[in-house]
Amino acid sequence: MSLTVVGTVAFDAIETPFGKTDKIIGGAGTYVALSASYFEKNTNLISVVGDDFPQDYLNMLKKHQIDIRGIQIKKGEKTFFWSGKYHDDMNVRDTLITELNSLATFDPVVPDAYQNSEYLMLGNLTPSIQRLVINRMNKRPKFVMMDTMNFWMDKTPEDLKKTVSTVDLLCINDEEAQQLSGEQSLLSAAEKILADGPSFLIIKKGAHGALLFNKNGNIFSAPALPLKSVFDPTGAGDTFAGGFIGYLAKTDDLSFDNMKNALIIGSVMASFNIEKFGTERIQNLTKKEISYRVKKFIDLTSFNIDENSL
Amino acid sequence: MSLTVVGTVAFDAIETPFGKTDKIIGGAGTYVALSASYFEKNTNLISVVGDDFPQDYLNMLKKHQIDIRGIQIKKGEKTFFWSGKYHDDMNVRDTLITELNSLATFDPVVPDAYQNSEYLMLGNLTPSIQRLVINRMNKRPKFVMMDTMNFWMDKTPEDLKKTVSTVDLLCINDEEAQQLSGEQSLLSAAEKILADGPSFLIIKKGAHGALLFNKNGNIFSAPALPLKSVFDPTGAGDTFAGGFIGYLAKTDDLSFDNMKNALIIGSVMASFNIEKFGTERIQNLTKKEISYRVKKFIDLTSFNIDENSL
Repeated sequence: MSLTVVGTVAFDAIETPFGKTDKIIGGAGTYVALSASYFEKNTNLISVVGDDFPQDYLNMLKKHQIDIRGIQIKKGEKTFFWSGKYHDDMNVRDTLITELNSLATFDPVVPDAYQNSEYLMLGNLTPSIQRLVINRMNKRPKFVMMDTMNFWMDKTPEDLKKTVSTVDLLCINDEEAQQLSGEQSLLSAAEKILADGPSFLIIKKGAHGALLFNKNGNIFSAPALPLKSVFDPTGAGDTFAGGFIGYLAKTDDLSFDNMKNALIIGSVMASFNIEKFGTERIQNLTKKEISYRVKKFIDLTSFNIDENSL
Repeated sequence: MSLTVVGTVAFDAIETPFGKTDKIIGGAGTYVALSASYFEKNTNLISVVGDDFPQDYLNMLKKHQIDIRGIQIKKGEKTFFWSGKYHDDMNVRDTLITELNSLATFDPVVPDAYQNSEYLMLGNLTPSIQRLVINRMNKRPKFVMMDTMNFWMDKTPEDLKKTVSTVDLLCINDEEAQQLSGEQSLLSAAEKILADGPSFLIIKKGAHGALLFNKNGNIFSAPALPLKSVFDPTGAGDTFAGGFIGYLAKTDDLSFDNMKNALIIGSVMASFNIEKFGTERIQNLTKKEISYRVKKFIDLTSFNIDENSL
């Protein structure tokens, strides 16, 4: 199959209790595409950068067989820049700098080569721009997944609702699900959100894993791998989404059973991402490492209760 | 096999956003023994009550085939009474009343009929009294599990350490594990606690499930069942512990694989307990209901990733 990812490609400067980085490659589109590229070999990326963006970074994406013809390079403009600092409690971070730069006027272009993508992943962006991308595909992809954030729930709730109602899967975190639905219980939140549009919902719970829901009331729970420390959580959610959609596109099986597998793959990829700064870890993974970590998740979750033992 | 449970048998008066109760039967020993009794048919209970404790409640325990010869009835004394109120966020509760009454001078007696119990569960009590029970058994049981709480970590830390180092399994919640170890990461907390004594550690995470660790670095993660509402969380942790130790005693298999099963059974029993006030739900369970809910946990956690799909 083929997967098209829309999302930011950016400079990040990150500070955690373990150290800090200069400007390094970041952005939701980068994390999603890199993570997906380990599974779906036809992964395309739509984004925008300024002409200050290093060719080395673009080459790195190409090295992962990511088609980057959809990344516009804006002459005379600068690349989106984000800088953040994590506290000792890594769940809390301060945004120090947000410079939209070339992202402020982002007008996504879908190259001809991407037009037949069966899978589309809409990274967190202005909801109207996410819809624009769907509309600019010659035909609606077989499966559209989207991410979003509380910012759009506050700022453009109606616009966000419109986008949510047109996609197949919404992927958000627990607090966002509670805000979007007005429900405290994640199960109630899921029922309400699924009644409004998408067939599937993923609720990410950080160190507590993730839940997958469908309209028929099926639920799947994936744990997060217990870890001694999180080196840098930046991009973990996007890496998770990339592993999920990359595996789904590769296997091209939309059954709930296969989506369970995809949720585990997303969790596996996220567990790697937080081991090093930025994309460093997910730039350098082997199939063997991935396979070994899948086994860790099997050990972590599998049990075998004999009906007669009850 | 045979299981002996030590723990409080009490009056509880509970208020939740869904309503309030009069004085009803409560106490860690009650919840643990009731829950365990669905699996281990030789379950014994050691506790103390006053002569105000209704015979009906004792008969209810007997009806569950629980041997209550170890419950001392103190003439002229009153039964331990606890009253609490839960907030809209059910994770927060205020203790309104704690009257120790007959519990203040609890001197546990192990009846002869309990002496050969292979499994011993020490509910949350003064750590020195927990040790006393072990010492009053003619021979150390094959497997000793204990619960405790932050109160003893603050009040008698050295005494608690002594008890923890003599048992096989410690069962506490995430905040208690962090306090006991001084570690933020649950994995680091587990390593530190296991280095100090017990071979196994369970960390309960409430709505996020539970983790099981052993000294060899094995980890198992059980989810909690996603629910629309928690009617009354009182006793959920004790019901969980009871399901775990009851299943373990019944199957008499201390392999890590079987402990995984026991952790799921504990989660199943806790998921029932919170559906009604106090012990109401776990007084009235059928084997079929338990079996059906085990299947729900299988659906919730099982996946099947083909190595070739990676």
